[in-house]
Amino acid sequence: MKLPKQVTIIEVGPRDGLQNEKSLIPTEVKINFIKKLKMAGLQEMELTSFVSPKWVPQMKDAYEVISSCLDGTRDIVLAPNRKGIERLYETNCKAFAVFVGVSESFNKKNINKTTTESMEELKPLIQELKEKGYFIRACISTSFYCPYEGKVEEESVLKLCSTFVQYGVDELSVADTIGKANPKEVFSLFSRLKKELPNTMLTAHFHDTRGMALANVFAALQAGIDRFDTSAGGLGGCPFAPGATGNVATEDVVYMLEEMGIQTGINLSKLVEAVDIIKPHLTRPTESKYYRLQSAK
Amino acid sequence: MKLPKQVTIIEVGPRDGLQNEKSLIPTEVKINFIKKLKMAGLQEMELTSFVSPKWVPQMKDAYEVISSCLDGTRDIVLAPNRKGIERLYETNCKAFAVFVGVSESFNKKNINKTTTESMEELKPLIQELKEKGYFIRACISTSFYCPYEGKVEEESVLKLCSTFVQYGVDELSVADTIGKANPKEVFSLFSRLKKELPNTMLTAHFHDTRGMALANVFAALQAGIDRFDTSAGGLGGCPFAPGATGNVATEDVVYMLEEMGIQTGINLSKLVEAVDIIKPHLTRPTESKYYRLQSAK
Repeated sequence: MKLPKQVTIIEVGPRDGLQNEKSLIPTEVKINFIKKLKMAGLQEMELTSFVSPKWVPQMKDAYEVISSCLDGTRDIVLAPNRKGIERLYETNCKAFAVFVGVSESFNKKNINKTTTESMEELKPLIQELKEKGYFIRACISTSFYCPYEGKVEEESVLKLCSTFVQYGVDELSVADTIGKANPKEVFSLFSRLKKELPNTMLTAHFHDTRGMALANVFAALQAGIDRFDTSAGGLGGCPFAPGATGNVATEDVVYMLEEMGIQTGINLSKLVEAVDIIKPHLTRPTESKYYRLQSAK
Repeated sequence: MKLPKQVTIIEVGPRDGLQNEKSLIPTEVKINFIKKLKMAGLQEMELTSFVSPKWVPQMKDAYEVISSCLDGTRDIVLAPNRKGIERLYETNCKAFAVFVGVSESFNKKNINKTTTESMEELKPLIQELKEKGYFIRACISTSFYCPYEGKVEEESVLKLCSTFVQYGVDELSVADTIGKANPKEVFSLFSRLKKELPNTMLTAHFHDTRGMALANVFAALQAGIDRFDTSAGGLGGCPFAPGATGNVATEDVVYMLEEMGIQTGINLSKLVEAVDIIKPHLTRPTESKYYRLQSAK
């Protein structure tokens, strides 16, 4: 069994995690949380997003978060369209994330566009950003299952990912958005992506909705994947599954990897301190097993 | 990646699970729970144990549970010594489980005997039971980590397991008692056990203390293991780790296996109905992701 020796963790708690948190978190708390995460050793992070405050009020403090937290590591800001990119230009942020779902129904409901329409809109934006020297990450939602259409075919994911690579993106974050993928599917899809897109940074993004997230991390490692999106404290939820847990917890992934002798460069005690900062402001209990064990001590 | 086509689930909720439950569950509820589990398709089950009611009051109704639930499938009763076996002889139960820890400190604290003393005491009992035609299962505790000694060496586990095979046991249930093993260790140990003890039924027993149980199931499958101990509703806990969750939930394991196309013969809806029976009597919320998702619908 061949496993990578090192893994890069991309912290998505401040953006993907908090986006699904109902209570509005004070900006100061977010900034402290992010700074502590950076102190824990996280070198790549989704900081915030430029989306409409009408739809996602949690992200209305994007400018303040960016101006307080940018530090030369890979701080990523997400934006869905031209308007978001114009706002990005007003900051010093140099890494940018776009997103699209493989599933047509998901895109229609989520952003009111077909997948093809999304891609046509994103193409010139990505090219413009590339010319300006930005790092571009494409988040591929519903890469395994769609809440409306069910199973998503590997061919469709490969096609969409290949198109993004042709557009010039640096990284693909391939997501099991509703947390339904099983390790066999994960190994299969990531093995194919790794083979067909050998020069692109491939990141796996799992939710722990059905408890399979760490099993999927283990499957992806075996397919040669060495980048994982995770969320401190397991922040986040799933608007498509009542009762669902959120993104896989950074602490749980780091713990498992380090126990297997795979280096992450992340300090678990500092990570726990970061969760301590955000936890009192959350409406739901944390699902992170590592955090719960540490807190019970 | 080679995975088995079929897997046998050994339900341990009524014994290993409830043993760690603080509130005394009415016998009638236990019996209904067990009967519903059988209706869900579980063909092998740890029903109860003959241990001192002083130490484990939850198991004081062992006779009633056995007499109401034995049905010709593999109903297993656990007992630690000669006294327990004499009580077994008074029933029609034909499958018997013994247990011992690989770690000396664990045995000393748990049963006040060294591992060698335990084995010497068990040897004639196992031989007597074999002669009488009983099915014998040996539960090997602390096969990866001990709460007092830390990491347990593979060599020690192999040695203990080989001795049990020489004694004539039919099945070895190899347990990560404190839920600390990682998938790399699981793959390594079970690959060796499978190679060195090819004619013995090998069962993997995981706790979800650090969230790695399903990852470990996936690792064990890759090592050729096709038998898993699981607990409906994730019943159970861990007296050695405050805040710890219990055995891996039968629903979560069955869901993952069936999603991967591996047959278990178990009906998930009926399994959920079984958890519905026991849940109101538990002191802790269930950790089973599948059950929680179904209940939130």
